[in-house]
Amino acid sequence: MSSVIGNKIKLSVFGESHGEAIGCVIDGLPGGIKLDFDKIDKEMARRAPGKDKTATARKESDTPHILSGVLNGVTTGAPLAMTIENTNTKSGDYGNLMAVPRPGHSDYPAYVKYGGNNDIRGGGHFSGRLTAPIVFAGAIAKQILEEKGIKIGAHISRIGGVCDKNFDKNDISPELLDVLSNDAFATISAEKELEMRTVIENARLQGNSVGGIIECAAIGLPVGIGANIFDTVESRFSAALFGVPAVKGVQFGEGFGFAEMLGSEANDGYEIKDGQVSLITNHNGGVLGGMTSGAPIVFSVVLKPTPSISTPQKSVNLQTMENETLVVNGRHDPCVVPRAVPVIEAITALVLLDMMM
Amino acid sequence: MSSVIGNKIKLSVFGESHGEAIGCVIDGLPGGIKLDFDKIDKEMARRAPGKDKTATARKESDTPHILSGVLNGVTTGAPLAMTIENTNTKSGDYGNLMAVPRPGHSDYPAYVKYGGNNDIRGGGHFSGRLTAPIVFAGAIAKQILEEKGIKIGAHISRIGGVCDKNFDKNDISPELLDVLSNDAFATISAEKELEMRTVIENARLQGNSVGGIIECAAIGLPVGIGANIFDTVESRFSAALFGVPAVKGVQFGEGFGFAEMLGSEANDGYEIKDGQVSLITNHNGGVLGGMTSGAPIVFSVVLKPTPSISTPQKSVNLQTMENETLVVNGRHDPCVVPRAVPVIEAITALVLLDMMM
Amino acid sequence: MSSVIGNKIKLSVFGESHGEAIGCVIDGLPGGIKLDFDKIDKEMARRAPGKDKTATARKESDTPHILSGVLNGVTTGAPLAMTIENTNTKSGDYGNLMAVPRPGHSDYPAYVKYGGNNDIRGGGHFSGRLTAPIVFAGAIAKQILEEKGIKIGAHISRIGGVCDKNFDKNDISPELLDVLSNDAFATISAEKELEMRTVIENARLQGNSVGGIIECAAIGLPVGIGANIFDTVESRFSAALFGVPAVKGVQFGEGFGFAEMLGSEANDGYEIKDGQVSLITNHNGGVLGGMTSGAPIVFSVVLKPTPSISTPQKSVNLQTMENETLVVNGRHDPCVVPRAVPVIEAITALVLLDMMM
Amino acid sequence: MSSVIGNKIKLSVFGESHGEAIGCVIDGLPGGIKLDFDKIDKEMARRAPGKDKTATARKESDTPHILSGVLNGVTTGAPLAMTIENTNTKSGDYGNLMAVPRPGHSDYPAYVKYGGNNDIRGGGHFSGRLTAPIVFAGAIAKQILEEKGIKIGAHISRIGGVCDKNFDKNDISPELLDVLSNDAFATISAEKELEMRTVIENARLQGNSVGGIIECAAIGLPVGIGANIFDTVESRFSAALFGVPAVKGVQFGEGFGFAEMLGSEANDGYEIKDGQVSLITNHNGGVLGGMTSGAPIVFSVVLKPTPSISTPQKSVNLQTMENETLVVNGRHDPCVVPRAVPVIEAITALVLLDMMM
Repeated sequence: MSSVIGNKIKLSVFGESHGEAIGCVIDGLPGGIKLDFDKIDKEMARRAPGKDKTATARKESDTPHILSGVLNGVTTGAPLAMTIENTNTKSGDYGNLMAVPRPGHSDYPAYVKYGGNNDIRGGGHFSGRLTAPIVFAGAIAKQILEEKGIKIGAHISRIGGVCDKNFDKNDISPELLDVLSNDAFATISAEKELEMRTVIENARLQGNSVGGIIECAAIGLPVGIGANIFDTVESRFSAALFGVPAVKGVQFGEGFGFAEMLGSEANDGYEIKDGQVSLITNHNGGVLGGMTSGAPIVFSVVLKPTPSISTPQKSVNLQTMENETLVVNGRHDPCVVPRAVPVIEAITALVLLDMMM
Repeated sequence: MSSVIGNKIKLSVFGESHGEAIGCVIDGLPGGIKLDFDKIDKEMARRAPGKDKTATARKESDTPHILSGVLNGVTTGAPLAMTIENTNTKSGDYGNLMAVPRPGHSDYPAYVKYGGNNDIRGGGHFSGRLTAPIVFAGAIAKQILEEKGIKIGAHISRIGGVCDKNFDKNDISPELLDVLSNDAFATISAEKELEMRTVIENARLQGNSVGGIIECAAIGLPVGIGANIFDTVESRFSAALFGVPAVKGVQFGEGFGFAEMLGSEANDGYEIKDGQVSLITNHNGGVLGGMTSGAPIVFSVVLKPTPSISTPQKSVNLQTMENETLVVNGRHDPCVVPRAVPVIEAITALVLLDMMM
Repeated sequence: MSSVIGNKIKLSVFGESHGEAIGCVIDGLPGGIKLDFDKIDKEMARRAPGKDKTATARKESDTPHILSGVLNGVTTGAPLAMTIENTNTKSGDYGNLMAVPRPGHSDYPAYVKYGGNNDIRGGGHFSGRLTAPIVFAGAIAKQILEEKGIKIGAHISRIGGVCDKNFDKNDISPELLDVLSNDAFATISAEKELEMRTVIENARLQGNSVGGIIECAAIGLPVGIGANIFDTVESRFSAALFGVPAVKGVQFGEGFGFAEMLGSEANDGYEIKDGQVSLITNHNGGVLGGMTSGAPIVFSVVLKPTPSISTPQKSVNLQTMENETLVVNGRHDPCVVPRAVPVIEAITALVLLDMMM
Repeated sequence: MSSVIGNKIKLSVFGESHGEAIGCVIDGLPGGIKLDFDKIDKEMARRAPGKDKTATARKESDTPHILSGVLNGVTTGAPLAMTIENTNTKSGDYGNLMAVPRPGHSDYPAYVKYGGNNDIRGGGHFSGRLTAPIVFAGAIAKQILEEKGIKIGAHISRIGGVCDKNFDKNDISPELLDVLSNDAFATISAEKELEMRTVIENARLQGNSVGGIIECAAIGLPVGIGANIFDTVESRFSAALFGVPAVKGVQFGEGFGFAEMLGSEANDGYEIKDGQVSLITNHNGGVLGGMTSGAPIVFSVVLKPTPSISTPQKSVNLQTMENETLVVNGRHDPCVVPRAVPVIEAITALVLLDMMM
C-alpha cells in the first residue's frame, strides 16, 4: 500500500469510505501562500455527488477541515493536514459483500492481499471517495500554478458512443479553460451534453453503467520541464493518473492515433512567431523527449464503467468457495466521468507543481 | 534528468548514442543467480538493428561487457555494472542539427533545458540506442521471474492500418509467448507479418516512417501485487513504459475501448474452477484496484512514427532565429515497433521484479 | 520541508505545537494486526510531560484518535491516520518571539526559509511535541517486531556530569529491556537516577537546562539486515534519529571511543557457541559493513540542553534589525532526555520494521 | 544492497576491489559545467594510497575514465558515467578468507546475506577502494559549490591519543580550508602531524591499526537549507557519511560534548554585524532546527581502526563450523584516517549540492 505521491510536494492520502474520516497531508508546500478558500470550495463542489441523475444520490459531506500548516489563512510551510468527516454512510448495504467479491472491483485481490482485513464497506480505501482529498490538494496546486501563469482545464471527450469536439491542441485559450471549469458537465460542444446525459440516463435506468474519456490540457508552461529516461512528463503524469480509480488508459497528443500516422503527419514543425520559437502543430501533446515543448500539454484518460451495477453478476463466495450470483445494492454513479473531470485536473496540477518546484 | 528507476532493483542507465559507451548499473540484485548469457545474448539480438529493411542499416556493436557484480557467472549481490561500446558512429551526419531542431525529437526542449550543451549526435542520451541496456537488464529480470513461473511476451498489434489478432486475454499459453519471443517480427497471425512489412517498406521508400502498437502480456502472477492509491500496477508500469522513446500511450485490458462499454460488459465475473477462484473474463487486463487479479496482465502501448525522416520539414535555426527547411540525413528506422517489442518486454520484467522483491 | 520518512512503512508527521491538532499517517502497515492499545497508551504516557519536575509542568492531551486504517481494533492495510488534539496551549506566552529569534531554536532559519510565515508559537512544527505521533507509530512498530522476537530498550546514559552504567553490549537480556521500559526515568544503575535528577533540578532552579546521552539497544535481530554502500543500518538509523529535536550526535558501538583504540582492541572475534556463529565481543554495536551482525544493535545519541531557558540571552529583532535581549517565558523542560527515551526507542522500532518489511 | 544516494543528484557507485573496474554514474548534473580536471586529479591523488607509510603500500590505478555525460570537457546534462580499472590486485592473498570471516569486517553478515556469493577478495564491494568514485563525484560537486561561494575543508582531529586543535567554529577562513586541502596529512597544528604519524607508525610496526576523528567544515552557505522533521541537514549528512567504510559516529557542533553543557552555554546568541544577522557563537555547528543557520557547518566523524591487522585473531570456519585462528595477510592501511579526509569532504560536497539543487 502506498498512498503517498510526489518528490518535493508529497501528498499522503488516507481514509476509508465508511470510516470516520478521510483526508490528506500535503508536505512541502512553501510558506506564505494565502489560500483561496472560495476556489477550494468550488473545486470540491465540482467533484461532490448528488447534483443530478448522472451521479449517485448520496449526499456526502465534503467540507475540508484543516488541522495544520495554515495560520490565518496563510500556509506556514509545515505539512498541511486536512480531514473530511464521513457522515452519510449506509454500511448496512454492504453486508453480503464481505465474502462475495464484486466483479470489476478491488475486492478479490484486496481480500487476498490484506488477508480479509481490509474495510470492504463502500470500497474502503479503494473508494472513489478518496479522490476528494486529491481535489482539495489539487485546488491549492492550481492556485499556485495560476500565479505562475499556468492554467489547467478538462472536458468530457466521450461517453459511450457520443464524442465531444476535442481541444485544438495548439490553440487553447485560458477563456475556454475557465468556461469548462465552471461547467458541472464540461463539454466543448454544448449540444453534446444532452446526448451524453441521455446515454448515462439510459444506463442508469437499466441498472447499468457506462465509461468514457476525459481530455485535459495545461497551458502557459515553460519549455524543458521533465527529463528522460525515466523522469518524463508522461511518466510522472501517468503514474499519478492511474491512481484515480477506474482510469485504464492514458495517452498524450494523438496517442493511440499515432499508430496510423506517418512521420510526416506526426512531426510538429517549428516556426518563428513574434520572435519566438513556436510549434506549428502539437500532435505530440506538448511533450517531446519527455520534456515540455512549450505547446499545451494535452492528454486523455479513459475511465471504465462503474463496476457497481445492480444487474445480477457471477461471483464466488470466498468462504464456502462456491459460485454465487451477486446483486450489488447501494447508491452508485451510473457514470463517474463527469465527477472525475476535476479529479483529473487536480492530478495534473499536483504533478506539474511537483515537477516545477 | 533522471535515468534511474526502481525501488528495490534500481536501474541506472547512462550513455549517449555517439559517445564512447552506453551502459547501466543494476543495484539490488540478489546474490547467487547464475546468469544465462545465451538468453541475454538472444534478447540483445532481438533489439539490435541491421537485420532487415524494417530497421536502420546501421550495425551496432551490442556486446555487453560486465564490469562488476558477477563472479564466475554468478551474481555477487553487489551492483552489476555493464557497458556497451559505441563503435559504429557516423557523427558527420549530424553537423547541421546543432542549431536546427528536428521536428518530433527532443532537440528543442533539450536545447533549452541544457543550455545547448547536450550531445545532439544521434539523439545523445535521448537516443533509442539507450534501450539496449534496458534490454540487458530486462533479460536478467526475465530469468529470475521465469524461475518463479512468470513468463512475459509481446507482439506487434498494429502497424499503420494493419492489425494483428490480439491476445485472448484470459487464455495465454506459455507456448505462445515462447513462439513470439523467437520471432524477429512477432505477430500472432503469421499472415499479418507480410502486410505489416509492406506498410513499413512503403514508408521507407518514401523517406517516411510509420507508427504502431505493441501488446504485451505477463502470465503466472500471484494475486495482490501492487496497491492503491499511487502504487498501482498500472502506475508503476506506465511510469517505466513512458521512458521508452516514442511511447505516447499506455492502456490496460480493454483500455480506451472501455469508453464504449457498459458495466455489465466490462466487469469480469468470478467462478470456482479446479477448486480455485478464477476470472471468467479479463477485460481489466489482470489489474483490479491497482492490484494483480491473478489473470494475465495484458496491456498495450502505442509508439509514434520515428521522427527522423528524410522528407524536408519546417524548422528554425535557434542561433539566427530564422525559419529553415530541414532534411534529416543518416540511417533511420522506418518503423521502431518491431525492435521495440523486446524493450517493452524488458520493462515489464524489470517493473514486475521490482514490485515482487 | 519533509516530514515523511520510510520506504515500505512511510510515516508522515504533521501538526504545529499550538495548532488545532498534531498527528501522523502510517502508510504500508500490513492488514490483520490486532493493535495492543494498552501498549500504545503506555508508550504515549512515557513521553507525556507533567509527571514530575524534570519536565515541563504543561499537561498535554496526548490521546491518539484513529481516523482510518483500523476496523474493530485490527489494521485494514490502508493508511492509518491518527490525530492528537492540542488542548492546553498558552499562546500568549509567545508574543514577543515573532520578531526576536530564540537562541538555539529553529526560529531564525525558519523565519528566513518560510518568509516569516511559519507558526512560531511553541516552536510550531519544530516543536518536541511532534514526537508524540512518532511514539504512537513506534508503539505499533514495536508490537510487530516483538511478534518477530525483537525487543528494543533504552536508558539515560548521561546527564551533565553523571554517567549511568552502559549496556554490556554483547549480553543484553529481554528482562533488562522490560525493566527499563517500565521506568519513567530509565537508568541501569538505580542509584544514578537520584544524582541525575539533582543535576536537572539544579538547572531548573537556575532557569537553565542541561543535556544528556541516551543509549539504546535492539536484540533478537537476524544477521544481514541493511546493506552498503548507502543503505547501511547506521545510515538509516542516523537519518531518522537526527529528526528528533535536540539530537546532535549518533554513534554505534564504541562510537567516538574508537579513535583511541587499536584494531586488536576494536575487532570482534567469532566463536562457535551452541553450534552457532557467535561474536565474542560487540564493540561494533551489532553492525558490520553496514549490516546487522547478529549481536545486539547498540548505539547512543546526544541531546543538547533545551534551548528554551529563562535566563536573558542576546538576540536581534528581525524587523528593526537591532540587537535585543531576550527572556523566554513559558513552561519548558529543564532536560528533555528522560522524555526522549521512548522517542529514541520508537525511531529504532520504525526504522527496523521498515528495513525488515 | 543500495549503492545509490541522492534526490536530485543521484550517485550510483559500483565495483568490487578485485573485479575488473569500479566506478560511478552521476545522474542529474546540470549541463554546461566545464570540468576542472586538474582539481579532479588532485582530489583523486589525495585519496590514493602508496604515498607514505601511514597507508597501504599498494599502488592503485586511480585514473578516472569518463564514458558519458561530458562532451569536449563540458557536462551535457546526461548521466556522467566513469570507470577506474583495477590493475594492481593480488587476489592470491585472500584464499583462506572465503570461509573464515575477518573480525571487524563485513565478511560474516555478507556471507549470510548473499549466500556466500559475494566477492570477498579485497572486501569486494565493501572495500574502502569504493570511496575513489565518491571522491571523483565529490570533486565535481565541490567545483559547482565553489562557483556559488561555498568552500569545504577537513582535518585530522585525532589519531589515538593525539588531538589536533579544532576549528574555531564561528571563524573559519577560506584560506585555512585551502591550506588543509593541499596537505596530504591535514592538521591545523602543524606540530601534531609528527605525533600522529608516530602513533600510526607504532601501530604499523606491531601489525596493528589505529582509529581517529576527522573534523569537517563548510563555509559560505545560505540560511535555511534543509528542513525538519526528517529532511534535516544532519539527517542527510549522517546518512551519507555512514556510507563511508569505518565511520561509526557523526556529531554536529559540540556533539557529544553537549551532554555536559547547560543551555546557557550551548545556545548561540545573535547580533547585528555589518547590518546582517550574525551568530555570536556556533556551538550548534551551523545547524538549527535541521536547517543551516548561516554559520559554518562543522561536524566530526569517528573512524574505527582498520579491521585488517596481521596479529592472529579468533574466528570460525563457516563451512566446518569450527573455531579457527586467523592471520590476515595482504597490504593494509595501519590508519585510514588521513586518506579518508578527502572522502569526508567529497560526501559533504555531494550532500550539500543535492540539497541546494
